[in-house]
Amino acid sequence: MKQVDVLVIGGSAAGIVAATTSRNFYPAKTVALVRKEEKMLVPCGIPYMFGTLDSSDKNVVPDMVLEKADIELIIDEVISVNQQNKTCTLTDGSEIGFDKLIFATGSSPVRPQWLEGIDLENVFFIPKEKDYLDKGSRAFTACNKIVVIGGGFIGVEMADELVKAGKDVTIVELLPHVLSLAFDAEFATRAEDALLARGIKLSCGRKVKKILGDGKVTGVLLDNGEILDTEAVILSVGYNPNSNLAAKAELTISKMGFIKVDEYMRTEHPDIFAVGDCAEKFSFITRTPKRTMLASTACAEARIAGMNLFKLSTVRSFNGTISIFCTAIGEDAFGAAGVTEDLANERGFDVCTGMFEGIDSHPGSLPGTHKQIVKLIASKESGTILGGEVFGGKSVGELTNLIGFIIQTRMTVDAVLTSQIGTHPLLTGPPTAYSLIKAAEIIAIKRNKCMC
Amino acid sequence: MKQVDVLVIGGSAAGIVAATTSRNFYPAKTVALVRKEEKMLVPCGIPYMFGTLDSSDKNVVPDMVLEKADIELIIDEVISVNQQNKTCTLTDGSEIGFDKLIFATGSSPVRPQWLEGIDLENVFFIPKEKDYLDKGSRAFTACNKIVVIGGGFIGVEMADELVKAGKDVTIVELLPHVLSLAFDAEFATRAEDALLARGIKLSCGRKVKKILGDGKVTGVLLDNGEILDTEAVILSVGYNPNSNLAAKAELTISKMGFIKVDEYMRTEHPDIFAVGDCAEKFSFITRTPKRTMLASTACAEARIAGMNLFKLSTVRSFNGTISIFCTAIGEDAFGAAGVTEDLANERGFDVCTGMFEGIDSHPGSLPGTHKQIVKLIASKESGTILGGEVFGGKSVGELTNLIGFIIQTRMTVDAVLTSQIGTHPLLTGPPTAYSLIKAAEIIAIKRNKCMC
Repeated sequence: MKQVDVLVIGGSAAGIVAATTSRNFYPAKTVALVRKEEKMLVPCGIPYMFGTLDSSDKNVVPDMVLEKADIELIIDEVISVNQQNKTCTLTDGSEIGFDKLIFATGSSPVRPQWLEGIDLENVFFIPKEKDYLDKGSRAFTACNKIVVIGGGFIGVEMADELVKAGKDVTIVELLPHVLSLAFDAEFATRAEDALLARGIKLSCGRKVKKILGDGKVTGVLLDNGEILDTEAVILSVGYNPNSNLAAKAELTISKMGFIKVDEYMRTEHPDIFAVGDCAEKFSFITRTPKRTMLASTACAEARIAGMNLFKLSTVRSFNGTISIFCTAIGEDAFGAAGVTEDLANERGFDVCTGMFEGIDSHPGSLPGTHKQIVKLIASKESGTILGGEVFGGKSVGELTNLIGFIIQTRMTVDAVLTSQIGTHPLLTGPPTAYSLIKAAEIIAIKRNKCMC
Repeated sequence: MKQVDVLVIGGSAAGIVAATTSRNFYPAKTVALVRKEEKMLVPCGIPYMFGTLDSSDKNVVPDMVLEKADIELIIDEVISVNQQNKTCTLTDGSEIGFDKLIFATGSSPVRPQWLEGIDLENVFFIPKEKDYLDKGSRAFTACNKIVVIGGGFIGVEMADELVKAGKDVTIVELLPHVLSLAFDAEFATRAEDALLARGIKLSCGRKVKKILGDGKVTGVLLDNGEILDTEAVILSVGYNPNSNLAAKAELTISKMGFIKVDEYMRTEHPDIFAVGDCAEKFSFITRTPKRTMLASTACAEARIAGMNLFKLSTVRSFNGTISIFCTAIGEDAFGAAGVTEDLANERGFDVCTGMFEGIDSHPGSLPGTHKQIVKLIASKESGTILGGEVFGGKSVGELTNLIGFIIQTRMTVDAVLTSQIGTHPLLTGPPTAYSLIKAAEIIAIKRNKCMC
């Protein structure tokens, strides 16, 4: 029987980072990674395969990363795990023994079985599977009209890419706004404006009753009786954790279906870890379980598991997901970290918010200057920053990360206000009206006046 | 005699922010700002008036900011301050009484009197004066060859803008590299490569002995005997704090010439504050006095003074400059925060560094992807991050601010490694190889192996 020190199941972002971190922190250990896929897609690059990138081959994670780190890559599927013997069984019945095991089995698109018509031809999901998506891509190329069901990040990005490729695209979203798990209405409506400006049609606050067609999709029936004629449907209504293998191995699965883990990313078996979309999550702020699956969380979990594999460290533990996202629609970019105002209120926080509308280069007369809006959500009582939302140009990604760090280090409004911010005409907003600082100032003023 | 609650002297970034912060935190107080200039330039936008912006009028701070905040703007010069009576005298002999006074008198270009030829026609400095710079701009337009003496940020940015306008430009720098106060050699040489690629000539490690000419500039004589023929010279060899007015008022001036202040930005007189380039500075990391003058520091100081004017707050105090800068040369951008490796070593720190070369969007096949390099400098013993340097595309500004926050919150390498980073194909590097995290990881691995 083959024996390795560290075995990782799953080759997407979390699996790669768990394996390379193990290698880096425990250089004497043997590390192997088992994955089903011949070629591994960059998960967040998937929507861009349908427009910006001209082929899925351009969206492949190079295996060189694993080779260079001397990580053995095994293309196969683990069909069972034996906790007691510490072994995994592959499809041909062969076994691999491990000292430490890391589940990084990811997630799969939700298939709403109650929805009639989901098995029709030209109804597609967005799994992280190259062959399946290539088939979808070919189908979309032949279609003019496409309906995207679900206005989350994947749905919005898919729609934006398909419209770029000249398609007639409609997004149907159950909630009143697209992206509403990440953004309060002020930002979500801006995203909607950007989508509409790109020629995408929106149908928000609408439930899909049925996908119509005979063999092949012909339309989508909404709860108001409206029928959207279409040649293809993309169902993007969330993802479920791939925790079946862990469940079969009798590891504890949470109510939401995730593999139960502690702050070191260990399952209840001290030598078995789980990271990424398949691992249980809770919110850094609200402390309640969360379903949000993001590379930002997955990679942090993977680093933490990798570092704690053979030696636990209290300063290298996980303290809940901050839910940092960002996306772009045309020239507009959107980012969020921590809680929205709506969620904070819903979960019982007493908050004070500040929103400032500035610019992302300065003076505003500089070519390419983009409007930039920052909203901060703080605890009314302590001034601790609980969340932030950003609208702007290409610098939104890193500005959102900056807010993520502010939340993670539990900075208060005062700490932000006394912080130094580097500025440059071509690269940032002005030093006198840097949106993040001004948003914090608005909160401080409200708190001073007891006007929160 | 006119009487105001808060009087600010100086109308550049620090003055504006001090005045607006006073207004915001003490809405009942009257605030006035006295400045000499009819129109106020955006200071860091000055180099861009010579190329990207087609007129200095496009680089003017709108007075609307002051009007909207109900701050009285007085265009005049304060010629003396009386500490005891708490009054300022203007050029016409009239007086203004104040309850609180804030010096934001800024800085002026160093004029090296030992250098023969600095008074020749077509020798220019870069003060923040619109009329003077407009004259310079007209002179440059008529010249083909221009020599910039001093390869700091202003010199480099001026050179880059003038070359954009079709000029033949040479930078002469005394130190071995341009920008060497902000960057270690790995980054400074990249900046040099970018300048050379833009067609700028460099003469580093060379001292100017004399500016040649008879009435008008004809050349620059270097210490190796070389003569650079030129029609104009820009002298950009640093700035001196404008502290004469404060000195005349018998406020204490530091050895380096700055107005002495405490952590609330107060001078030795409890009702008189000083902020920005004229105020004394010390380093957040090395705790020693610093000459570096930056909008990032100035605006933080101004906010702190404004908030502490009538009510001191220990959580709103200044703890030393982080020296956050960023700049762009063509499509390349450069940023730095905290100490360089060289400076850390020179000041007695035992450091461990990590440098990672990644990309700023992903996959790398996406159009517009720019190389991104992050170097982190950490304390070997504690792992606390002391400094960082960044090379990349347009997101460098906010990524540098992120490093600035890491330094300000005294995060360790472990804290960075367990942090969550949001990523998006179009906006950031990949989650599996985000440059900042990988640079931190390199340090952690070295520390683990006791290989720092």
